[in-house]
Amino acid sequence: MKKVGIVGVTGAVGQEFVISLDKHPWFQVTQIAASEKSAGKTYPEAIRDPNTHVLKWQVGGEVPDYVKNMIVRSVDEIKPEELDLLFSAVESEAARDIETRFAKDIPVISTSSAYRYEPDVPILIPGINDEHAALLETQKKNRGWKGFVAPLPNCTTTGLVITLKPLYEKYGAKKVIMTSMQAISGAGRTPGVSAMDVIDNIIPYIPKEENKVRIETKKILGKLKDGKIEPADIRVSCTCTRVPVIDGHTESVFVETTSDCTPEDAKKTYEEYNKGSTVKGFPSAPENYYVVHDDPTRPQPRMEREVGGGMTTTIGRMEKEELFDHGLKYMLFSHNKKMGSAKGAVLLAEMLYKKGII
Amino acid sequence: MKKVGIVGVTGAVGQEFVISLDKHPWFQVTQIAASEKSAGKTYPEAIRDPNTHVLKWQVGGEVPDYVKNMIVRSVDEIKPEELDLLFSAVESEAARDIETRFAKDIPVISTSSAYRYEPDVPILIPGINDEHAALLETQKKNRGWKGFVAPLPNCTTTGLVITLKPLYEKYGAKKVIMTSMQAISGAGRTPGVSAMDVIDNIIPYIPKEENKVRIETKKILGKLKDGKIEPADIRVSCTCTRVPVIDGHTESVFVETTSDCTPEDAKKTYEEYNKGSTVKGFPSAPENYYVVHDDPTRPQPRMEREVGGGMTTTIGRMEKEELFDHGLKYMLFSHNKKMGSAKGAVLLAEMLYKKGII
Amino acid sequence: MKKVGIVGVTGAVGQEFVISLDKHPWFQVTQIAASEKSAGKTYPEAIRDPNTHVLKWQVGGEVPDYVKNMIVRSVDEIKPEELDLLFSAVESEAARDIETRFAKDIPVISTSSAYRYEPDVPILIPGINDEHAALLETQKKNRGWKGFVAPLPNCTTTGLVITLKPLYEKYGAKKVIMTSMQAISGAGRTPGVSAMDVIDNIIPYIPKEENKVRIETKKILGKLKDGKIEPADIRVSCTCTRVPVIDGHTESVFVETTSDCTPEDAKKTYEEYNKGSTVKGFPSAPENYYVVHDDPTRPQPRMEREVGGGMTTTIGRMEKEELFDHGLKYMLFSHNKKMGSAKGAVLLAEMLYKKGII
Amino acid sequence: MKKVGIVGVTGAVGQEFVISLDKHPWFQVTQIAASEKSAGKTYPEAIRDPNTHVLKWQVGGEVPDYVKNMIVRSVDEIKPEELDLLFSAVESEAARDIETRFAKDIPVISTSSAYRYEPDVPILIPGINDEHAALLETQKKNRGWKGFVAPLPNCTTTGLVITLKPLYEKYGAKKVIMTSMQAISGAGRTPGVSAMDVIDNIIPYIPKEENKVRIETKKILGKLKDGKIEPADIRVSCTCTRVPVIDGHTESVFVETTSDCTPEDAKKTYEEYNKGSTVKGFPSAPENYYVVHDDPTRPQPRMEREVGGGMTTTIGRMEKEELFDHGLKYMLFSHNKKMGSAKGAVLLAEMLYKKGII
Repeated sequence: MKKVGIVGVTGAVGQEFVISLDKHPWFQVTQIAASEKSAGKTYPEAIRDPNTHVLKWQVGGEVPDYVKNMIVRSVDEIKPEELDLLFSAVESEAARDIETRFAKDIPVISTSSAYRYEPDVPILIPGINDEHAALLETQKKNRGWKGFVAPLPNCTTTGLVITLKPLYEKYGAKKVIMTSMQAISGAGRTPGVSAMDVIDNIIPYIPKEENKVRIETKKILGKLKDGKIEPADIRVSCTCTRVPVIDGHTESVFVETTSDCTPEDAKKTYEEYNKGSTVKGFPSAPENYYVVHDDPTRPQPRMEREVGGGMTTTIGRMEKEELFDHGLKYMLFSHNKKMGSAKGAVLLAEMLYKKGII
Repeated sequence: MKKVGIVGVTGAVGQEFVISLDKHPWFQVTQIAASEKSAGKTYPEAIRDPNTHVLKWQVGGEVPDYVKNMIVRSVDEIKPEELDLLFSAVESEAARDIETRFAKDIPVISTSSAYRYEPDVPILIPGINDEHAALLETQKKNRGWKGFVAPLPNCTTTGLVITLKPLYEKYGAKKVIMTSMQAISGAGRTPGVSAMDVIDNIIPYIPKEENKVRIETKKILGKLKDGKIEPADIRVSCTCTRVPVIDGHTESVFVETTSDCTPEDAKKTYEEYNKGSTVKGFPSAPENYYVVHDDPTRPQPRMEREVGGGMTTTIGRMEKEELFDHGLKYMLFSHNKKMGSAKGAVLLAEMLYKKGII
Repeated sequence: MKKVGIVGVTGAVGQEFVISLDKHPWFQVTQIAASEKSAGKTYPEAIRDPNTHVLKWQVGGEVPDYVKNMIVRSVDEIKPEELDLLFSAVESEAARDIETRFAKDIPVISTSSAYRYEPDVPILIPGINDEHAALLETQKKNRGWKGFVAPLPNCTTTGLVITLKPLYEKYGAKKVIMTSMQAISGAGRTPGVSAMDVIDNIIPYIPKEENKVRIETKKILGKLKDGKIEPADIRVSCTCTRVPVIDGHTESVFVETTSDCTPEDAKKTYEEYNKGSTVKGFPSAPENYYVVHDDPTRPQPRMEREVGGGMTTTIGRMEKEELFDHGLKYMLFSHNKKMGSAKGAVLLAEMLYKKGII
Repeated sequence: MKKVGIVGVTGAVGQEFVISLDKHPWFQVTQIAASEKSAGKTYPEAIRDPNTHVLKWQVGGEVPDYVKNMIVRSVDEIKPEELDLLFSAVESEAARDIETRFAKDIPVISTSSAYRYEPDVPILIPGINDEHAALLETQKKNRGWKGFVAPLPNCTTTGLVITLKPLYEKYGAKKVIMTSMQAISGAGRTPGVSAMDVIDNIIPYIPKEENKVRIETKKILGKLKDGKIEPADIRVSCTCTRVPVIDGHTESVFVETTSDCTPEDAKKTYEEYNKGSTVKGFPSAPENYYVVHDDPTRPQPRMEREVGGGMTTTIGRMEKEELFDHGLKYMLFSHNKKMGSAKGAVLLAEMLYKKGII
């Protein structure tokens, strides 16, 4: 049993870590930390809103028993020497300092963007670019660390890259145009998106999001060579919007492939990927990494959210894109709080553990 | 033209004041103020969210021209000597200090609860208990002020008392049981209710709200005698909830009257009140103070919001309440941002102005 | 293994039956039926909207495997001689005819109101008035049937009576005033509530609902004596509304008890009921029949829905009601599609099976 | 004063016609018609739901006085000889027959797709392709009609073409990729989109919509030459989705222009169009045909809906599209019930009236 800690445990992402690690067969949560104002409280008290008294707990069910009596520490009170691994769910500016501090001693798996764009840091999606994990060794050497920082991508990048990878590898991809319809849970919870702003509305702008998607997509699809990642030669454009959906990002994708790829080819390719999935059977992995629907009314956030425990990427509306010489258009659904965030980070930890890197 | 100021001008209530005073025939806004961090900015810049860049402006239409170039002052920079009247939309703890400071010199009309429960302070609903305004003179004497503080009730009290008053006066009322379904705009905007908390949900608790309704209802329906208000002898119980409705509070009311009052009696009584309304023809007053529907599907927030410019109180589902010896049950709709807040405060100012009190 | 059929299997309630009976340890679905236009189709095709192509399946997850290849029959094609029990989810006028036809031969458990108000028909809530099941024997004799009709109450009655029963039994109850905030799923799905009518809105009226609650509450709390049920001597008034919540009814309750009952007394009483629950351990029963929260922000539909598989009734905001000599006020949550409908019907079948009545 | 009729007056679009023609300075509604089951009823009774008793009236305000006592006719009872113009809001299959019947005698302006794709029928957007109105003369000759059918485009096409036209004309356009987020009101009201299907959800498919957008865009941007329209040489691809927004379509657009066009060029071009608008000053025309925002958080449906009485097209997020040699990306908002439907049809009538065609 590996001993793991969670920093940023009271926020939206931290709560998902708490759920994702409940009864985990390989990892045991032994330390949890958040900001000073939470320190010293039990976990339930730390997540209660002082003004409204609302327990700021994720939708659905109860706080797991294992954290009910755990005391939240300040970050300074975390003892890395008693941990095998730290999950960082810190959303603030402080993420970089915190992750740096702990990576000196132990592996840090992070959902923040603090380290994503460093040359010796891979952005990892388990099942997609596992081979980039080799860069972690370079990182340790470069920095003289005993641990490392391994970040996930932005949750909007996750679904896009997962659906592009099989096509990119087999048919090539030159251009991608994407419009996202992102869930409000992606904006966190304190304060998150105000109900006044998003009910019966669309917010057509998410600061910095589009640039993240562009850069991260090219990096994740890139090649690791001589200790660095050469970004994929693919042009990505996107518009990111916020819609009144609680959980799960939907993306409308148009892709120009290098060689011809029919919708049937694409479906077959996803099926092959399902069969050969590198994360198959891992505790947090879904039964099907991809589900492709012929039903034109799928994917729908409310219908896909629970599929594969939120770890399946759902694809629908797969059609030939006549605008390009070769191309496809499709819709995808990816659960921003599960595969795109904490539970995806746990799956990443599982992958690194199986590779012996943790 | 009376010169008026607004403090707390950037918040949700402050914005409603800005709209309610646009092109007002009697009042001209000459000074606006908010917290230190807004001071010195133009009004539009002061209401822009620094992180998301969202202009935190009320739904619908544009910021009125007259404030587009006005500079927001700090509260300390307000010059009462150049004002005839101050509207206070301060929602924070600071309300009491601010209102006290200015009431020494000028009339202050407030949407906050800071002064509501003082014995020499009436809680005024224009058109309902105008005679309580006489207490303002007592207040001035008591405190040695040149001005006064005249607060509105809580927005949930407003609709309840407006619908009770005619019944209470004519038939008496012994017990009132009410359940509210309150709009999210009632919780303000920064941060207000998180979308994560209220979409597809009900929050069954609004801190302190129920007690406010109980106390304020008795005070407003009370009698002013010998310089003080004797609370009405009526027992009020309520449960206040938050629902995913943007604007406008709905309340389900059960009332035990002292003498028999049929639904037809009640309707006739409201009609008489409409005809004799003391605020009839005022700039902010609606054509009909009350609208009573026979259609059982009314009131509905989305259908009533615009009626009478948000200043009409809508009643429906009026039926005999068999549970009591004499009684009625009904549903009411009252616009929390209009009659229940800033625009109601402007109507109050109009009433006091016409009475020569301002 | 008892062989069971479902009529009305394509509607909203029918779909809940399909889910509730998936992998059931005691009951096996062997026949399913719906209207003529569905007959002959596989189940998935029968629930697909012909115009929009949307699969009209309940939110969440997939159609269970066991019905994927079952052929929907017309009602005439149902063979009662091959069934031990029929679940009726028929929502239309046809319910009475259909239930009558089959009750001649086999037990029929119904979610419709067709038979609820007949003197020899009990309205049963498993765990609440199990002793009324004895009336089914009278019914069979009266009508010369081999089977019987056993209806559930209206889903809004369910939560109210479940929370009243322990109080009524121990402390007496004279008056109940309730306002409901009902989920849109309660209105079914074809066409159900139009999104245009309910988003950002409240509909203050549900035809016939309030009268159902009044009559059913008195009947279920009544005493079975000499082959008939004497309604409870309790006066019930309510206002029923529809709110933009997907699943689960919330009710605000004010109750005048006969003898004094503090909130603590009430909580203790519910705990005792939990321990002695007559349905404890049944396949569809929740671990806790009641959950009572001290947290004033509970119950909330999004947080309670999954608790106890939708079969737990959640109570919160329990306070003394000062308006009455003795009384309480509280909020309750009851899942209208689970305990209040099909899954509740399955729990009823389990109870009757254990009693040897099926 | 021209005498006008409305067929399909009880549906969602018909109701918008009723509002759009209230107090119109040029047109007087003298005859209204709907299906047989509405015939003979007053307008308010004809739009009441027989089951729920809900008045199926558009959100906001009241039914205009002028129709309150008008009797709805059957289509057969419409007397064309007493009309100058007929508005057709028929949404069903019957549209073609009905429009054909009346076009023999009088001009018919239609929101249906029945005639859109005929070679001698222009698809008209007033202010965009007014010169195509000349084709109506050809149509009359071809068919030997005294009247004609003049259809609007699909409401999703409307916003796209309005924003493309100035760019297309000045800079050329080769490829357009668009993802729409369409309001639920676009699906009509009886039954329209079920609340169960769209709350907290996205439906990624609207039958036939994408093909309509593709064909109509090319036709409207085409050239009228020798009595027929040559479609524009532009390749259009789109994905159309339904989102939980009540009114107003939002579209995310990526366009490859023929020559270089910077965001500043685009803004200037829209301003010029505003100044030279052919519909300027018409009763239903907005003050600004286009509004372009620099604020990246615009357009937002709740903030744009009321702008220009729903007749302004709002553009935001205008940026250079690096994916193409020359190109732009932007978001647009167009009110599907106003400019995209009945009120747009009224504006079209105004344009044709001013040209002397009606």
